Amino acid sequence: MSDRIAFIGLGIMGEAMASNLLEARGELSVFNRSPEKAAKLEARGAKVCASPAEAAADAEIICLCLSNDNAVKDVLFGEGGVVQNLRYNSLIIDFSTISPSMSREFAAALKHDYKAAFIDAPVSGGDIGAKQGTLTIMAGGDPSDFERARSVFEAIGKSATLAGPVGAGQLTKAVNQIVVSITVAAMTEGLMLAEKAGLDVVKTLEIIRGGAAGSWTLDNYAPRVVAGDLGPGFHARNMLKDLRIAIGEADDLGLPLPVSELLKSLYTALCAHENPDVEFGNHALIELYRKGFMTGGVKD
Amino acid sequence: MSDRIAFIGLGIMGEAMASNLLEARGELSVFNRSPEKAAKLEARGAKVCASPAEAAADAEIICLCLSNDNAVKDVLFGEGGVVQNLRYNSLIIDFSTISPSMSREFAAALKHDYKAAFIDAPVSGGDIGAKQGTLTIMAGGDPSDFERARSVFEAIGKSATLAGPVGAGQLTKAVNQIVVSITVAAMTEGLMLAEKAGLDVVKTLEIIRGGAAGSWTLDNYAPRVVAGDLGPGFHARNMLKDLRIAIGEADDLGLPLPVSELLKSLYTALCAHENPDVEFGNHALIELYRKGFMTGGVKD
Repeated sequence: MSDRIAFIGLGIMGEAMASNLLEARGELSVFNRSPEKAAKLEARGAKVCASPAEAAADAEIICLCLSNDNAVKDVLFGEGGVVQNLRYNSLIIDFSTISPSMSREFAAALKHDYKAAFIDAPVSGGDIGAKQGTLTIMAGGDPSDFERARSVFEAIGKSATLAGPVGAGQLTKAVNQIVVSITVAAMTEGLMLAEKAGLDVVKTLEIIRGGAAGSWTLDNYAPRVVAGDLGPGFHARNMLKDLRIAIGEADDLGLPLPVSELLKSLYTALCAHENPDVEFGNHALIELYRKGFMTGGVKD
Repeated sequence: MSDRIAFIGLGIMGEAMASNLLEARGELSVFNRSPEKAAKLEARGAKVCASPAEAAADAEIICLCLSNDNAVKDVLFGEGGVVQNLRYNSLIIDFSTISPSMSREFAAALKHDYKAAFIDAPVSGGDIGAKQGTLTIMAGGDPSDFERARSVFEAIGKSATLAGPVGAGQLTKAVNQIVVSITVAAMTEGLMLAEKAGLDVVKTLEIIRGGAAGSWTLDNYAPRVVAGDLGPGFHARNMLKDLRIAIGEADDLGLPLPVSELLKSLYTALCAHENPDVEFGNHALIELYRKGFMTGGVKD
């Protein structure tokens, strides 16, 4: 009999992933802190649970898609948490992007205290990839658990790779986010110089993007920047969160990453501009340059 | 009658470009400060001149491919320089990467004092592109001069674009080099974190390069870095030179480019490692990280 699935955390990413799982399986138990987010899934036949523990009671595979270390810890081990009702031989798949060290800690506690397996499986591909079921999944865990998770991964992503033991998925995601954020900086400073020097920005992009300067970022984000579209896509504040995770890991390894550190500072400044009326995508870094780095003070 | 061509500056790039021009035209006058560099071209029928002035006397279009502002100034206006023998209605095409402001200065002096036209036309594509005649040419100048230069560009490049008036070619190159150098930093810090964290670096690259982290750099340089091949290709010291030009231009515009500034510092430190036995390509930035930024002091 195939594993039953529960899905906890119905944010933009989580809801889309849960939707694809429901489509593939025909049944799904879900939980979200704000229950109204579950309404659409409920209308399509999902069972809405009152707590993570209730969701865990319904399933052998429990998927999480949450915002940070503490949210994952709380859902697993807090009041009404998953561990209160874990079934024999359960598997927890954590799609959240959190720190590799916390993933390893959670995995160890689940294995030792509850005989449950854990896979860290952060994704990339954004809200569009989540909706279309074309996410890239970077997994860490035991090969047998990865095999057991395969049908779940197939329902939500176009590719899933086992990068290594628990934590390796998060590490791979950290590497990915470092490369993405710095490549965004490459685009940003290039565009700024082109703009300020009075070049035709569109023509400049056309000239440089086919050569050694070329990147996914230049192909996909630069046209949005030029068109004045700075909204998410992928939130600037999530890039800041991911850079903090990556640099925290580098700190633990004694590895200086000066460019990533600078990017963390720049995203910190950018996010100080955000307010309820303006949401920045990670490609909105250029806004900071256009404002001459005058961020209007640090948030409380 | 079609313009006769002279080519001054037979470095790695210049010699390959001159070779393609000789092939296309059947005749070419050449000059190089070290005359032995002209031997191969001479054997194929090129006329080797004793000075820039002698080369200028032979041609209506004079191509330059030199290392910096001063070298161009000297070849044009110094002793035995091009201007001593400029023919009526000559066109000077400068393939060197120099500062946009110097290009504008040279163009103004040539027009005012010698009634000669000038196009700045820096290239990208490296030694391989120069040899294969597949360079990307970023030109600045008058449209009529650009048309006149077209057959020259076609002999050495796969694409030539007029970016704007004189200086716009250099500005476009500066934008290109900012984007390339920062994208190299993105690769470098990503690879370092992967290495130090114990990930399988080849597998990590395979996972991330198809998504938002993807770039020409990741596709073309990362495999060389992984294989331990840090030689040029494109010299680290030329990237440093180009970053200085780009940042000098940004300074003139009052534009802060903090990430490019950091890259300039990092390339300065990397180039302090170079010695006669070790030459670094611009993708060798990772060497600096592997040495923990201990550069062994600053050069004299």
